[in-house]
Amino acid sequence: MSVLRLATATVGVSGVYVQACGAVVGPKEGEGPLGQEFDRVWPDEGKGYSSFEKAEQGLLQEACDTALQKAAMSWDALDVVLGGDLLDQTVTTNFVGRTHERPLLGMFAACATFTEALALAAILVGSGAAATALASASSHHLTAERQFRFPLELGYQRPPTSAWTSTAAGAVVLSREWRAIQVQAVTFGRVVDIGGKDPNDMGSAMAPAAFDTIERHFKATGLKPADYTEIVTGDLGHFGIDMLKTYASDKGVQFGDELNDCGRWLYDAQNQDTHNGGSGPGCSASVFAGPLTRRLAAIPHGRMLLVATGALFSPTTYQQGETIPCIAHAVQIASTGGDSAP
Amino acid sequence: MSVLRLATATVGVSGVYVQACGAVVGPKEGEGPLGQEFDRVWPDEGKGYSSFEKAEQGLLQEACDTALQKAAMSWDALDVVLGGDLLDQTVTTNFVGRTHERPLLGMFAACATFTEALALAAILVGSGAAATALASASSHHLTAERQFRFPLELGYQRPPTSAWTSTAAGAVVLSREWRAIQVQAVTFGRVVDIGGKDPNDMGSAMAPAAFDTIERHFKATGLKPADYTEIVTGDLGHFGIDMLKTYASDKGVQFGDELNDCGRWLYDAQNQDTHNGGSGPGCSASVFAGPLTRRLAAIPHGRMLLVATGALFSPTTYQQGETIPCIAHAVQIASTGGDSAP
Repeated sequence: MSVLRLATATVGVSGVYVQACGAVVGPKEGEGPLGQEFDRVWPDEGKGYSSFEKAEQGLLQEACDTALQKAAMSWDALDVVLGGDLLDQTVTTNFVGRTHERPLLGMFAACATFTEALALAAILVGSGAAATALASASSHHLTAERQFRFPLELGYQRPPTSAWTSTAAGAVVLSREWRAIQVQAVTFGRVVDIGGKDPNDMGSAMAPAAFDTIERHFKATGLKPADYTEIVTGDLGHFGIDMLKTYASDKGVQFGDELNDCGRWLYDAQNQDTHNGGSGPGCSASVFAGPLTRRLAAIPHGRMLLVATGALFSPTTYQQGETIPCIAHAVQIASTGGDSAP
Repeated sequence: MSVLRLATATVGVSGVYVQACGAVVGPKEGEGPLGQEFDRVWPDEGKGYSSFEKAEQGLLQEACDTALQKAAMSWDALDVVLGGDLLDQTVTTNFVGRTHERPLLGMFAACATFTEALALAAILVGSGAAATALASASSHHLTAERQFRFPLELGYQRPPTSAWTSTAAGAVVLSREWRAIQVQAVTFGRVVDIGGKDPNDMGSAMAPAAFDTIERHFKATGLKPADYTEIVTGDLGHFGIDMLKTYASDKGVQFGDELNDCGRWLYDAQNQDTHNGGSGPGCSASVFAGPLTRRLAAIPHGRMLLVATGALFSPTTYQQGETIPCIAHAVQIASTGGDSAP
């Protein structure tokens, strides 16, 4: 096991394996095209909790518990938990930390939080700083909407470019034991701000940040789009992924069918009224921890780049007329031929 | 250079040095007992910025710029920036990221954010994942008060246990070049919640979290209080530090004069009406990046443990009747005999 600086903020990782994953989603996500591939689907958004905020904590807790159960590990066997969420002061992650009482590293990169946590977890395990680590992220449609936009009861109309914050949580356990999926390299993103100001069009704002990170990752690793089974962005959605393709083409990078997006996959846009697609830290976390790792594990010599994307605004900065700074963090994983599905 | 897991979430670090520090504070902090030891003191809280939020960004930017200038480094020479702040969605850190455009890892651990960032930065540099890293944290009295409590214009009365959120920012540049201060070990904290519910008494809530991290750090490193020149908590303040001493004594750990607190040092409680003392991520960041590192560098074989403490609540969790989960992250540094002051 080792870590190696390949370039500025791109780190090669060896000997770090995905032990198991947990993905738990809400009812709307369960009715979407990926619904059958999550570990658990909640029957409703609240599941009996006394507030939506507590429900989001329950969702994240279930995703983490599921990952640990599948890894046949106890909470005590975890050296460190890394994660974050959308809520002010990342209270979902912190209040779940109150329950599990493991060393906790709180992260915030909006909807890019999951890959920030997963990348750092891989470096901690790969460097020998930790023997085991859990990376997680969550979001909840009803906590996010009332915090960032309006209470749902208002029934406001959503423009076509708006994203649907997902009710979803994902957790991934890493350690050095050989398994079907290994982490190969990570690239940390930098803030890219093209001057977008519309919080209902984050896909367009985030696409250049996604490209910046992908381009830096390619340069540092010497890989190109065709070298990947899948290149999956976080939540650019229908508008954002098209913008990324155009943007990349202008810069001389041609993506093919390997490029897709967690937010675009999560819902059936035609029938679920989700417009641009899914968003929220839980979107990429749950799609990675559910369908993506399982599918990749079954592909010989499969290689995937997950590029979660985040819009780093707050209601305050929006109200003060600020632009929306964006960021994307990338994690490259590969199948090893191991037969244990994550 | 290397990193070594000493115990759960305690990591030994070697070959990582503080290249330089930057500490910039507001006028009240400048009038306090440490006022002469910061790099810059602002003449007022706003300094001509159009909002207090923008002023906080300016404060953090100045602290980072100062650290880089003192290190004779350009922003381009930084592999990665790690940091966070108190504002919703950590917008201070993210918007400064828009200016510097370096790879950015956003952290949130409330007032413990600085040591989370510094500890991770030390691991990234010590493991070889990064050649250089900057760790930072900030807070601003006027942005925090109106977000967490009330607008100052309300003129509400503060109880004796309440802390004064500092207007302060600190930044530390790490790399492998030998300097006067080295990082020796870090311990990541876990959430400790004793059931406190009063956001005006965070020192009492955070003291058990501080002790938990300190005790784990002692066990993992084999060191005891007397082995340190200084053990400095983040912002327990006057009430919290006494509670920590009592709490430790009950558990068989006796602290002596080596134990102190950044929040207690930052203001003259008698004459500055700051009650329990300073708080905010900028408190421990600026006191560490200003007075503490400079003083330690002058002490042969000096060894210091900085234990920043954070209360992980939000206005929402408080209004929902929740308790206040707390955390503390620790970083141990030592003087090397090098003559270059940080």
